[in-house]
Amino acid sequence: MIIVLNMGSSRQDADVILRRLNDAGAEGSYAAARDGRGLVVARGEERALRDLHLEGHPLVERLVALSPAYRQAQRRSQPLGSKVSLGRLEIGGSLFAVIAGPPCVETRRQFLSTAMVMKECGAHALRGSIFRSGPHADSFEGVGIKGLDLVHEISRQTALPVVCEVSSEADVRALGSRVTCLQVTPQNMSNLRLLDALGSSRLPVILTRGAAAGLDDLLLSAERILAGGNRQVMLCEQGLATAANPARPTLDLAALPELRRRTHLPLLVDPSRAGAREGVFDLAAAAAACGADGILLDVHINPQDALVGGDRCLNPAEFKRLVTELKPFLRAAGRELGRA
Amino acid sequence: MIIVLNMGSSRQDADVILRRLNDAGAEGSYAAARDGRGLVVARGEERALRDLHLEGHPLVERLVALSPAYRQAQRRSQPLGSKVSLGRLEIGGSLFAVIAGPPCVETRRQFLSTAMVMKECGAHALRGSIFRSGPHADSFEGVGIKGLDLVHEISRQTALPVVCEVSSEADVRALGSRVTCLQVTPQNMSNLRLLDALGSSRLPVILTRGAAAGLDDLLLSAERILAGGNRQVMLCEQGLATAANPARPTLDLAALPELRRRTHLPLLVDPSRAGAREGVFDLAAAAAACGADGILLDVHINPQDALVGGDRCLNPAEFKRLVTELKPFLRAAGRELGRA
Amino acid sequence: MIIVLNMGSSRQDADVILRRLNDAGAEGSYAAARDGRGLVVARGEERALRDLHLEGHPLVERLVALSPAYRQAQRRSQPLGSKVSLGRLEIGGSLFAVIAGPPCVETRRQFLSTAMVMKECGAHALRGSIFRSGPHADSFEGVGIKGLDLVHEISRQTALPVVCEVSSEADVRALGSRVTCLQVTPQNMSNLRLLDALGSSRLPVILTRGAAAGLDDLLLSAERILAGGNRQVMLCEQGLATAANPARPTLDLAALPELRRRTHLPLLVDPSRAGAREGVFDLAAAAAACGADGILLDVHINPQDALVGGDRCLNPAEFKRLVTELKPFLRAAGRELGRA
Amino acid sequence: MIIVLNMGSSRQDADVILRRLNDAGAEGSYAAARDGRGLVVARGEERALRDLHLEGHPLVERLVALSPAYRQAQRRSQPLGSKVSLGRLEIGGSLFAVIAGPPCVETRRQFLSTAMVMKECGAHALRGSIFRSGPHADSFEGVGIKGLDLVHEISRQTALPVVCEVSSEADVRALGSRVTCLQVTPQNMSNLRLLDALGSSRLPVILTRGAAAGLDDLLLSAERILAGGNRQVMLCEQGLATAANPARPTLDLAALPELRRRTHLPLLVDPSRAGAREGVFDLAAAAAACGADGILLDVHINPQDALVGGDRCLNPAEFKRLVTELKPFLRAAGRELGRA
Repeated sequence: MIIVLNMGSSRQDADVILRRLNDAGAEGSYAAARDGRGLVVARGEERALRDLHLEGHPLVERLVALSPAYRQAQRRSQPLGSKVSLGRLEIGGSLFAVIAGPPCVETRRQFLSTAMVMKECGAHALRGSIFRSGPHADSFEGVGIKGLDLVHEISRQTALPVVCEVSSEADVRALGSRVTCLQVTPQNMSNLRLLDALGSSRLPVILTRGAAAGLDDLLLSAERILAGGNRQVMLCEQGLATAANPARPTLDLAALPELRRRTHLPLLVDPSRAGAREGVFDLAAAAAACGADGILLDVHINPQDALVGGDRCLNPAEFKRLVTELKPFLRAAGRELGRA
Repeated sequence: MIIVLNMGSSRQDADVILRRLNDAGAEGSYAAARDGRGLVVARGEERALRDLHLEGHPLVERLVALSPAYRQAQRRSQPLGSKVSLGRLEIGGSLFAVIAGPPCVETRRQFLSTAMVMKECGAHALRGSIFRSGPHADSFEGVGIKGLDLVHEISRQTALPVVCEVSSEADVRALGSRVTCLQVTPQNMSNLRLLDALGSSRLPVILTRGAAAGLDDLLLSAERILAGGNRQVMLCEQGLATAANPARPTLDLAALPELRRRTHLPLLVDPSRAGAREGVFDLAAAAAACGADGILLDVHINPQDALVGGDRCLNPAEFKRLVTELKPFLRAAGRELGRA
Repeated sequence: MIIVLNMGSSRQDADVILRRLNDAGAEGSYAAARDGRGLVVARGEERALRDLHLEGHPLVERLVALSPAYRQAQRRSQPLGSKVSLGRLEIGGSLFAVIAGPPCVETRRQFLSTAMVMKECGAHALRGSIFRSGPHADSFEGVGIKGLDLVHEISRQTALPVVCEVSSEADVRALGSRVTCLQVTPQNMSNLRLLDALGSSRLPVILTRGAAAGLDDLLLSAERILAGGNRQVMLCEQGLATAANPARPTLDLAALPELRRRTHLPLLVDPSRAGAREGVFDLAAAAAACGADGILLDVHINPQDALVGGDRCLNPAEFKRLVTELKPFLRAAGRELGRA
Repeated sequence: MIIVLNMGSSRQDADVILRRLNDAGAEGSYAAARDGRGLVVARGEERALRDLHLEGHPLVERLVALSPAYRQAQRRSQPLGSKVSLGRLEIGGSLFAVIAGPPCVETRRQFLSTAMVMKECGAHALRGSIFRSGPHADSFEGVGIKGLDLVHEISRQTALPVVCEVSSEADVRALGSRVTCLQVTPQNMSNLRLLDALGSSRLPVILTRGAAAGLDDLLLSAERILAGGNRQVMLCEQGLATAANPARPTLDLAALPELRRRTHLPLLVDPSRAGAREGVFDLAAAAAACGADGILLDVHINPQDALVGGDRCLNPAEFKRLVTELKPFLRAAGRELGRA
């Protein structure tokens, strides 16, 4: 960590800071910059250095971090990349995972028929959420906890793992017994209680990047789950809020190569949440081109009747076409579409 | 609600939509726009119209809302504005409220001495949070639930109401019995579970706008609390994430006059969270100029030792000066600094 | 255009607006929405309706546009897409164009050697800019107008068309006589004088989207060039400023399918400007997957000595590898890498 | 400047960089950070260090600037602040300047009557622009250069200085002979040619911050004008593009105290451009509270007939009221409204 001292600081000022480092068992060295401004380069474990809280010190102008604040999530801790298993489906290896289903479970009929189409078209896992995750302007709240048995049953019937969104630590236990994987919604990426509950569970987790979150923040949230003891963490990119695109999140595909350098965690992309139906084909192919380990898609048996997100859901025929069209891009990327 | 049909739609297409409206007990009328594009103007209760989920209909290009999706929060429902009471402190009337304290309660000594200075300098309520609200790069997690008695005791001792941040529905009951008011952190503005738990409580709530949230989203979240039966809701602006200012949130003071037109809820501003120590004086005066009903401030007995946010905390002398300097601006705005 | 009247407006109010439409030779019809709020649906040519400037009318709350404000740029005006020729290179057809070169021309030696490598590796056109386009913190200003002969000579020698950035209308004529194509920098996307000068020229133009510009703004700028009589316009996406990624623009690839629906103009992507060297491979493949008609790349014979953008320049070996790795993605997208 | 070397760099690597510094006449010292990562702290003139272009060096991870890249603009170069004169009006002292007028000059009648009202109500300078500055969806282009005599005449007749927007270096000379002050539009904040032309002129300049520009970029543009020899530079804040507020720029008032610490240049705010008519009163008072040296306002004799920005123009009665209501806030801020 570099500690930039105030303009006009003296060698004596630096000594104050150096003593504070020494007292805390860390080390530092002094370097004079131009304009009589001094620097202290602190050596020690990142967290221990931050625990000194030098940002509020009257002699300090600012801190410049050199090491990331996430240790277990960083690539160095697992240079070959990590893998996460959803039943027999392994994410993070050479196979490309397609996770698809409706934005929300609505009825047995809707979810079962969608699930069967997913199976038939080659999806590897089902999307099956039972709650809405933020305030909304209509009345549908999700089927709620009572839909959990339905989700479980259809997951078994189709032999497809199922991913369910989670937005409260209070649901982790109940969901954990009935679904394969929990997805943290972007609104909850920094929900500490939820992250801690997931850290204590042993369920695979998809952590979705918030619409205004930097990659450091995303990795700090992932670190929190890892630090709790759960190693089954994947990241998901589904777009940033920008002034230039008021009607849709801006999918940040450049985050993929950048994340791959920084972390070993498997990387998913959700092109459905990042746009309208029409753009999903291109963005899915682009995600494959950027080395994503898989995609999440919204598919509805009948988009015009969907209670949530009907304008971004593919219908079964479109989904089938998307999977077919994706294959040559996966081959180009040196990947394969795994068997369902 | 205006339902914009696809380019090239016919009168017959419009009839399909009109029938759907009629079936749902709503009404609509057809209007032809240019280019053979048709519109249907739907009349009916906003929520009922949204429940038709026409956004996914294959004949529909997009929906244009005319009424806001929040009914109880809108100004029309209380044209003279609403007031919220924190003990004897009334927010939303002619007095201007100053809520101040440390970013986090650390120790008895720290919180008690800060509280006594707040009291002496004329603060009307204490800020007293016991949890950190998002992942962080250091070790301090907040004193946690065990600090609640301390907060309660010092609130009584100083006879100052106390505001505590909340980020999980699981804490609402415990906090509710010991503090005066709960503040929803910006990360949790759309946390539905938390909003619902607050709606069921009878505690005053400060709902903080998220760093990427539009005013409609903020009001939709407020509506959720109001709809739960809790009328004691205030809004707080503390800045938006922008690319232009990577190091600080951009305080959106223009939101104040806009919110005042749209809603009757009292409006607070937190200039501390929106910037460094140096800018807080100006932003507090600017908040007063924009008609805020009060401000929240970070004050620490000794900022250089603060475990959270030391670089944005005022020290007691600075706080005292700020309160003094604020007075002429409040007078200019036709407000008064209430008695503590 | 929909004219939304103020809350509480009467039929008489609507008549005022309807008369104003009639006086201007346009038509309108009245539709009552809920809450006694009225609408007027205006029919007429978009520009003529806007020329009424009803946004300032005291009876009007807001206007909702139904037709885009760009006519010649919209896809309907050329449903099969348009093509632009840079010498023998045709952009917008089935071939994929690779335009590459240094961020700035520095010396004869640097530009000639880079150009020869570009040629050898299969680039179709040279990037060859002679000016810096915004304030900068170092001393290099570009070789300036005196470098134009060099650019021209090397373009002829390699038989490669050359693209040169332009940021002032004063340079259009001089550049036009010596280079093949002019690229409007993102800072100048809305520079009306420059757009008008380009509209009057007959040179192919690459219009780069500004870092905070919406697609409507981009197309309005393109329309301005087209309206001047120049049909040789291409668009280029190279990233948006976002708070989440303070160190790099966020490449908005979803803009490609969206632009393709809205406009017939050829679409280019510049992955170099949107990121660091490491991400360029992935983003180039992703651009191909999203149906781009070509890419622009920064390549320097020796990136460590580059006077501009050395951290994002590929070296010749990396460029060669990128072109090779791109091919299977182009095949997957139904494209071919044209012959240089 | 701190030069952060790549992870795993050796002392020998640092020596390579140190030699490069020495060769360039600068100095540096080595400091080892944790993880075997090295740093070089370079001492020397900022521009000279940047001219080494170490950002592209294969041993370098990134550069951390310690000194700002603007020298003449920084506060240290004029600790007491600078002042700019528009005729007898001095901006940057204890008086607060009100510059008001229509968004565009339309007709003699419109401009003259607005100007006379401005005079009567106490404005200190006229806003009088003759060009539109970006692509637009209607037909009005501004009166153009032929309106310059009119602007000049009415400025003399009312004895009010006049501020005219400029967006091309080609106009600087013509405008300079007829108006008092030139305002760079936000779209042109980084237009190097224009900045250089203004640097060569001796006209007072208002440099408006771009909608996505950081303060460093703004000051780098100001530096460019100052470096050209023109010391008469003022800065103007009128809002940032944000996703949260799609319909209006977000006025960044916290920029004022921050700019005041960094630069000596006078600071203006334009609340009209940052919002709708209704918010202008509050934002003008807030600008005064934040220590602005003056404001710019859009006023139209008849907003409903305005050809540009009718929805944000005040009418004369509203303007008069705003000036009156502003006074107590100015007094609170220790300012006075100067005499017209």
